[in-house]
Amino acid sequence: MYGRIFPNLFTRRTYHKMTTGKQILLVPGPVTLSPQVQTALSQDALSHTGAEFVSIFQNVLKNTRKLFKSYDMKAQPIVIAGSGTLGFDIAGSNLIKPKDKVLVLSTGFFSDSFADCLQGYGAEVTKLTAPLGDVVPLQDFEDELKKGHYTAVVATHVDTSTGVLNDIESISEVVQRISPESFLFVDSVCAIGCETMEFDKWKVDYCLTASQKAIGAPPGLSISMISERALQFALGKRNNSGVFFTSLKRWSPILKAYEGNLGAYFATPPTQLINSLDVALKQILETEGGIDGRVLKHKETSDWFKDRLCKELNLKLVSKYPSNVSAHGLTSIYVPNPKETILSLKERGFIIAGGLHKEIASQYIRIGHMGVSACDDELNHIPKCFKALKDVL
Amino acid sequence: MYGRIFPNLFTRRTYHKMTTGKQILLVPGPVTLSPQVQTALSQDALSHTGAEFVSIFQNVLKNTRKLFKSYDMKAQPIVIAGSGTLGFDIAGSNLIKPKDKVLVLSTGFFSDSFADCLQGYGAEVTKLTAPLGDVVPLQDFEDELKKGHYTAVVATHVDTSTGVLNDIESISEVVQRISPESFLFVDSVCAIGCETMEFDKWKVDYCLTASQKAIGAPPGLSISMISERALQFALGKRNNSGVFFTSLKRWSPILKAYEGNLGAYFATPPTQLINSLDVALKQILETEGGIDGRVLKHKETSDWFKDRLCKELNLKLVSKYPSNVSAHGLTSIYVPNPKETILSLKERGFIIAGGLHKEIASQYIRIGHMGVSACDDELNHIPKCFKALKDVL
Repeated sequence: MYGRIFPNLFTRRTYHKMTTGKQILLVPGPVTLSPQVQTALSQDALSHTGAEFVSIFQNVLKNTRKLFKSYDMKAQPIVIAGSGTLGFDIAGSNLIKPKDKVLVLSTGFFSDSFADCLQGYGAEVTKLTAPLGDVVPLQDFEDELKKGHYTAVVATHVDTSTGVLNDIESISEVVQRISPESFLFVDSVCAIGCETMEFDKWKVDYCLTASQKAIGAPPGLSISMISERALQFALGKRNNSGVFFTSLKRWSPILKAYEGNLGAYFATPPTQLINSLDVALKQILETEGGIDGRVLKHKETSDWFKDRLCKELNLKLVSKYPSNVSAHGLTSIYVPNPKETILSLKERGFIIAGGLHKEIASQYIRIGHMGVSACDDELNHIPKCFKALKDVL
Repeated sequence: MYGRIFPNLFTRRTYHKMTTGKQILLVPGPVTLSPQVQTALSQDALSHTGAEFVSIFQNVLKNTRKLFKSYDMKAQPIVIAGSGTLGFDIAGSNLIKPKDKVLVLSTGFFSDSFADCLQGYGAEVTKLTAPLGDVVPLQDFEDELKKGHYTAVVATHVDTSTGVLNDIESISEVVQRISPESFLFVDSVCAIGCETMEFDKWKVDYCLTASQKAIGAPPGLSISMISERALQFALGKRNNSGVFFTSLKRWSPILKAYEGNLGAYFATPPTQLINSLDVALKQILETEGGIDGRVLKHKETSDWFKDRLCKELNLKLVSKYPSNVSAHGLTSIYVPNPKETILSLKERGFIIAGGLHKEIASQYIRIGHMGVSACDDELNHIPKCFKALKDVL
């Protein structure tokens, strides 16, 4: 059995309650959309190779570079139809050869999924598993990296299952010092838009994210950046066994054409989703302080929430806190009765999520604070949710 | 170079013209949406494992069975984030082993793409290429099938590059008579919703489509059906090299959970797209005469349009006409100056497409008539387009 099937928590018995009154969605993705992003979704259908859509997709690709802070024009932004998970396959199919040694810094469910995926492409994975709620000590990582030649190092920027934040800058520093020839792959699904990402500066080779988290767009887009050297490897790779839809040999000229304001075809892009992503990216870049300002705002909301949960309600976070290993886009909290807490919050109009880490899934809840829920003070989502949580517990 | 990059037809010089006034989108997908489908896109964000979305996804999966006319509950509907092209990979990664012999009936660009994809998964492809605008003679197919054991036969229901329609029922009859152990794969991207598909009756093993054609939903969803025996093969397959996002071992329990009204997680489904697909499927099933009535309506619109193009305007179709090898969701027509025709129609408010078949790409235009453009008489899209075409030529 793969993946997770959830208990019949929300179904049937609360169905009627649920459909009355507006609910506030605070799961760690998909997130509540801004009105402008939501409106952009229902635009009139456009031809995927016509000027209007080409111009929109061009903006999206250009702004995706800014989102990852990648200014090397030989690096390539990738925006294709798919879930965030598809990014694992983009890395595996384009950048991994059978028998490649890959070192995975595991901080939870998503690190393990990325490892599973790369194994499917033939990688020989060595996993350093962090203590629950913490990261792998840098010294352990450095010691392991010294032992042998690793084709790639994999880190999960934020593991959405635990809320653990990895320090990608320090991980990158170790890679650069010990094994600069290794690719650095970063899963930033729950990080881009709410945590700092310096794609060029940190010499990341492949960084993947998804539309429905801190970017504040609807789910359905796999969004990623690939470095020049990784792209060159992908384009030169002889045997891309099994790769078609994720092939960068196929996508790279198409994406370059769109970014150059030309229509192109390999597979039909999801035009409405890309239109709403265009609006979401513009809203991020127009934030006071730009992308840095947006990240800072997420940090402020997160710190406010976590401090109150710990100090006022004496709750314990799954990710060590206070510390620098707690993510800023979600909070994972141990509560006495997660199932009841989720249902009680639901009755008060807040949709939150249950646990996802196999060892402790039934012991904690997860609350997302990304996009407008973290950044729009008028919505007041997090203070309201804190109050509700306080009432419930 | 893979795929197609289009000349700078619509860009810049007509940009200002384009954004004024409402255009009628008549490319062979994406299609104009019904107002209800369009509104469903901008629903409030939902949790992907909450009751409201689970119930929507349950409806979609149940109705997908009806769409393909598959009533064998052991067959599996598959709806995941991706372009139609992703369906090629679902077939390749789950149903093909290296060295498998695959017989492809090629009717154009899309048959060749499907063949390319399967070769990537190790298939040894034999291609029978139809004369341009026609199908492979059944006797040729039968003769080839008799020669050796083929793991799979691949047919393109409608090749969107030429508008050629394959007779899947007859192809199936040959497979059942000569080589019933062979899988039958059908690319029905431009067929489901506007051509007859009898998934169970015709013993199709894997049939793929996409959301943005005759189903009348936005692009971004890979939609397919897999037969019981093909699914059992996929679930038992030992070495799924390179497959993660398309793995049916991973998706099958998740999709079964959703269809059973339970939330489940492997990769985040595109909730808004699935909500709009839900509405689109209901509109198809609520058509007078149901799915058959919907197919008939497409045929009537198509026949009306093609007859007038041939008889009144003396134009020649790319797909042999009159005949039973012309698709009912689009019309491919040779015109003296396709580029100018496309631009002139654009000035009159109609967005159509250029050629896509490499041998004749610059000699023809393609006009889509799917979804509301074919079925909603009040919109009058096709008669209006015919009139504009008549003025232009």
